[in-house]
Amino acid sequence: MAEQVKIKAGIIGASGYTGADLIRLAACHPGLEITHLTAGKHAGQPLGQVFPHLAGLDLPVLSVTEEADWSETDVVFCGLPHGTSQEVIAALPDHMKIIDLSADFRLRDADVYANWYGHEHKAPQLQKKAVYGLTEFYRDDIAGADLVACPGCYPTAALLLLLPLVAQDLIHADDIVIDAKSGASGGGRSVKQSMLFCEVAEAMHPYGIAHHRHAPEIEQELSGAAGRPLIVSFTPHLIPMNRGELLTTYVRLTEGASATDLRRTLSQRYLDEPFVRVAAEGQTPETRHVRGSNTCLLGIFEDRVPGRAILVSTLDNLVKGSSGQAIQNFNCMFGFDETCGLMQQPLFP
Amino acid sequence: MAEQVKIKAGIIGASGYTGADLIRLAACHPGLEITHLTAGKHAGQPLGQVFPHLAGLDLPVLSVTEEADWSETDVVFCGLPHGTSQEVIAALPDHMKIIDLSADFRLRDADVYANWYGHEHKAPQLQKKAVYGLTEFYRDDIAGADLVACPGCYPTAALLLLLPLVAQDLIHADDIVIDAKSGASGGGRSVKQSMLFCEVAEAMHPYGIAHHRHAPEIEQELSGAAGRPLIVSFTPHLIPMNRGELLTTYVRLTEGASATDLRRTLSQRYLDEPFVRVAAEGQTPETRHVRGSNTCLLGIFEDRVPGRAILVSTLDNLVKGSSGQAIQNFNCMFGFDETCGLMQQPLFP
Amino acid sequence: MAEQVKIKAGIIGASGYTGADLIRLAACHPGLEITHLTAGKHAGQPLGQVFPHLAGLDLPVLSVTEEADWSETDVVFCGLPHGTSQEVIAALPDHMKIIDLSADFRLRDADVYANWYGHEHKAPQLQKKAVYGLTEFYRDDIAGADLVACPGCYPTAALLLLLPLVAQDLIHADDIVIDAKSGASGGGRSVKQSMLFCEVAEAMHPYGIAHHRHAPEIEQELSGAAGRPLIVSFTPHLIPMNRGELLTTYVRLTEGASATDLRRTLSQRYLDEPFVRVAAEGQTPETRHVRGSNTCLLGIFEDRVPGRAILVSTLDNLVKGSSGQAIQNFNCMFGFDETCGLMQQPLFP
Amino acid sequence: MAEQVKIKAGIIGASGYTGADLIRLAACHPGLEITHLTAGKHAGQPLGQVFPHLAGLDLPVLSVTEEADWSETDVVFCGLPHGTSQEVIAALPDHMKIIDLSADFRLRDADVYANWYGHEHKAPQLQKKAVYGLTEFYRDDIAGADLVACPGCYPTAALLLLLPLVAQDLIHADDIVIDAKSGASGGGRSVKQSMLFCEVAEAMHPYGIAHHRHAPEIEQELSGAAGRPLIVSFTPHLIPMNRGELLTTYVRLTEGASATDLRRTLSQRYLDEPFVRVAAEGQTPETRHVRGSNTCLLGIFEDRVPGRAILVSTLDNLVKGSSGQAIQNFNCMFGFDETCGLMQQPLFP
Repeated sequence: MAEQVKIKAGIIGASGYTGADLIRLAACHPGLEITHLTAGKHAGQPLGQVFPHLAGLDLPVLSVTEEADWSETDVVFCGLPHGTSQEVIAALPDHMKIIDLSADFRLRDADVYANWYGHEHKAPQLQKKAVYGLTEFYRDDIAGADLVACPGCYPTAALLLLLPLVAQDLIHADDIVIDAKSGASGGGRSVKQSMLFCEVAEAMHPYGIAHHRHAPEIEQELSGAAGRPLIVSFTPHLIPMNRGELLTTYVRLTEGASATDLRRTLSQRYLDEPFVRVAAEGQTPETRHVRGSNTCLLGIFEDRVPGRAILVSTLDNLVKGSSGQAIQNFNCMFGFDETCGLMQQPLFP
Repeated sequence: MAEQVKIKAGIIGASGYTGADLIRLAACHPGLEITHLTAGKHAGQPLGQVFPHLAGLDLPVLSVTEEADWSETDVVFCGLPHGTSQEVIAALPDHMKIIDLSADFRLRDADVYANWYGHEHKAPQLQKKAVYGLTEFYRDDIAGADLVACPGCYPTAALLLLLPLVAQDLIHADDIVIDAKSGASGGGRSVKQSMLFCEVAEAMHPYGIAHHRHAPEIEQELSGAAGRPLIVSFTPHLIPMNRGELLTTYVRLTEGASATDLRRTLSQRYLDEPFVRVAAEGQTPETRHVRGSNTCLLGIFEDRVPGRAILVSTLDNLVKGSSGQAIQNFNCMFGFDETCGLMQQPLFP
Repeated sequence: MAEQVKIKAGIIGASGYTGADLIRLAACHPGLEITHLTAGKHAGQPLGQVFPHLAGLDLPVLSVTEEADWSETDVVFCGLPHGTSQEVIAALPDHMKIIDLSADFRLRDADVYANWYGHEHKAPQLQKKAVYGLTEFYRDDIAGADLVACPGCYPTAALLLLLPLVAQDLIHADDIVIDAKSGASGGGRSVKQSMLFCEVAEAMHPYGIAHHRHAPEIEQELSGAAGRPLIVSFTPHLIPMNRGELLTTYVRLTEGASATDLRRTLSQRYLDEPFVRVAAEGQTPETRHVRGSNTCLLGIFEDRVPGRAILVSTLDNLVKGSSGQAIQNFNCMFGFDETCGLMQQPLFP
Repeated sequence: MAEQVKIKAGIIGASGYTGADLIRLAACHPGLEITHLTAGKHAGQPLGQVFPHLAGLDLPVLSVTEEADWSETDVVFCGLPHGTSQEVIAALPDHMKIIDLSADFRLRDADVYANWYGHEHKAPQLQKKAVYGLTEFYRDDIAGADLVACPGCYPTAALLLLLPLVAQDLIHADDIVIDAKSGASGGGRSVKQSMLFCEVAEAMHPYGIAHHRHAPEIEQELSGAAGRPLIVSFTPHLIPMNRGELLTTYVRLTEGASATDLRRTLSQRYLDEPFVRVAAEGQTPETRHVRGSNTCLLGIFEDRVPGRAILVSTLDNLVKGSSGQAIQNFNCMFGFDETCGLMQQPLFP
């Protein structure tokens, strides 16, 4: 291991929760060396000042993105907020591969992007060449990509569950209801009254009802699988916990299909996948089963209502829903085993 | 107030969370005097030993139900677990009115009961005369009832929302999906590994998928409103918080109906109700808006999917979902203003 | 009750947690009518927009303090942040009584104030006439006061415990170590990264070590009781919960004194006090025993270390530690029974 | 790494939280192979049934301790409850090394043991040869030991902080007050009403006041360092979080000593230790800085009270306070680098 050549990576926007989890995982990756950490307003500080839990690592001081010397860097992870990634990435030198964790390059259709984000895309040429980083479905494209757009946390949990079912026409693709629930870290580290401890603890509520930006992303991929434009009912909720995301998806089965067929299809599809697992029959997926790990866990249940099924998918929004999947894509792009650096087991309790 | 005649009430099963909240509320009711508190295995102990937070109240010592002298008692609240209430209540003297908080007398159909609870009802004659205690819909019957079966917490939140909509045929009554979420107190105070702090905190999951006993109760009432047998898709989830329950209900609108029609119908229906409120347009109901109070808060949202709406209802499972509604029914039965003892405002944060 | 004359009260700074809890309690007070609610940046909004949980109350719209017509108002509760209260209060008309919940008027010594707060007091003439609002010790002065400075939450819990013991010389007053723990609402509703849900949940830590501003307030009162200047070791901690505060105080007994003596002294001192209770021997005070109520609960334990005792005091920081004590003082000032509006029982779970 | 010889290890009592965390850590250890998992009442079940979060690992089915074939096993980790370890361990074959995580072999003095645990030790000959597994202080003895008794979580945090200070006579060793706070996992997975979610959440309290069994363990080691018998004031508290422990220790400095001396002493003592870190001056140790990792973090603060200092130590009770330290001792015993398998970074948020 000592002689292994390490890929030199920079992390742009290292002061958010996504950045922190990237660093946590990268620290256990034998083939990844962090050479730059940038974070605008914290530039000049050691990482331990922004994230004391990472103070024990030997890492570069936080710097300004624009002032970095990228000449020796192979790849950049970009953890900036939506809307700011596109310009920053467009300004980076060409020789580096980019793994973007924001929403900026997930939507392929420029109009859909403009419609949901309220402005024209500022790097449309990059948007076209970006590969959607849902590893289990795009790993060949990812391997050769220059720019990978990692999926949102909700779309990851929704698509790993639904893509095989829609592709095989086992469910009515235009009657999908997704009730999504997430811990507070999904909201990032930006400072808002609504995310104060006292506002979130001992409380829960839906948010972004009928206008959450992960909906078009889910629809883009499901429409591709169905071969026709689809629209889904998607409602996220804020739950008083740090990490973890769980989607309960309500579907109607197509003529002749049963919950058993759904289970068989998903089990076969993910038989050789290290990070997607179908829970044993009768066992209910729970967020604590995957906390801190890169696993997505799926569950299939027959409903009492004839012809309906209740589907469950859960993952850690900061790992498989973000930084873990980014590392998984890194592994694809640089020829590592896909599980490299990602075999940490869930932390429970 | 000093001269007001007080109704003498006993509480059977006073050592659970439901019992504790009954006592909390009763302590602020000017016309209710607690004369008996029973709790089998804690008999002989002062209440403050079981519930130190209530140690400041001057209340009778916990006693054994069977040994109580009920001759001066007007009414009994029964907070026993499901399945044990029916025999205990059947053995009580006739002169007392009964307000039962268990599920034992909620289902009117003996076969449905036997089917969901796995045994014949042990007090079928009482089952027939029990009145379903959803105050806003049965208050006239409740006023004259001898036995009131207080609804389950989920059914209360579901029915206050859906009954007017189904009755007016504004939604497709056979395509209702209810995603329910509850804090841990809904599970009661019984000691199970799955309810330990470390199993529940920083975690969430669905439970009782496709076989939760609140489903037939919801269906009984909705079927009544629809005039035909209905079946609903109902899935509850355990959320890491003490109190609070929120239902996100996904419905299809009938031809010509709009989300605005739903809002207007619910607003009119509850205009004069003190404990049911429709949230202002654009405002999302949250559990913290009702914590500790007897309020049920409703929200109506148009979905992006044409012809669909997303409905939200929230209440405190221990108050409007249990002990508060029991006091509200007590007020009906004994001629008090329905709000008597129930005007405590929500506790936030 | 209907004919009772109501005292007309304004609340300045109504948009913080302290303001919300004042309104919650005042809503159940038969002799208090809220005529003004002011909150600078929210002026013009209905209260329900800032605090949806209070939307059911019929209250005045939020207004600007400086524009209010106070001519009919009898008393003002002031819930502004420390440092801003003094000027606002100095500018109010003379005919109103003032109940201040900030730290601005708690310290009697102008030099101590300047030393801890970093600036000269801006209303020194008012500072002199302010009465320290620890009701159980100053109720006679409070009854006649024009300006009452309600104690901090930590000082309330510390002083109710320690004042009788220091006064009777039962403990070594210069060897007191107070380890204080508080839920997050003690930090107020202002928006800081350190108070985000993800920073506070599943975590704890001390803060303000050796420079928390409640220390001089505790010392002022204990020094008065001891008859000589004292200094205490005081360290607060942030605990992942909304409400509740618990102090574990480590003391050395004076020659001849025992834990039993401490218990007897405290029990006698608070025998007739409605809001201070000594827990039964062997029963440990817990924050959940007082959540939402105006009670302060005390516990006394003999240490294994000879000559030492371990003392516990707990209260709800927003009630007895702030808004509840303010209402209690209001009752003193306007001739109500001290318990008026304050008999709500603790909310558990 | 592939050819590395693996040490064959059994885990007795694998169904508790300590067992789960041992397995989590062991799964990332390149030189440790789990050959047995025993758990009485769960025998015959796959691990994934008891701990679904570990279902992805390829591990032996749970078995009965007494029926295991230990002939090929090199070492056993024992995670049984206190009081049951001693007999089980005494019955194991001699050829295996034992790493015990219970309290059974921590106290060297048979009388002290009998006094605190209420019965004579049942394996006194083993008690004599057990080595106290505080790695940083006993690593040479541990390397050659047959039986290592891993310290309790509180003693680990207390001793890493205090041993160097007592040894160098920088603090008055007979005036030490330790206020300890722990998350709920410290209480284990056994099912008790007091550990239910609704009893612990949104609440806190001290427990075991003046009789917690970690006190004699702390005193044993500090007495050794001081060269005379010591007694400490030690009070633990239950905090509503899963993992994490923080001790705030109040000390008096000896003549001439300063907080700076304490800092310098601790910094030097742990300069080369991978798992003990002194926080930068002014930075406060928090539990979230070490969650999930094997780090113990120390902080030193001068008190306002002349001659006093406030010391902070924090660790994850399940890792450095239990299973992580056990793996660290395993590394000592079998010649691995001490950090092997333990470099996972803290999980935040």
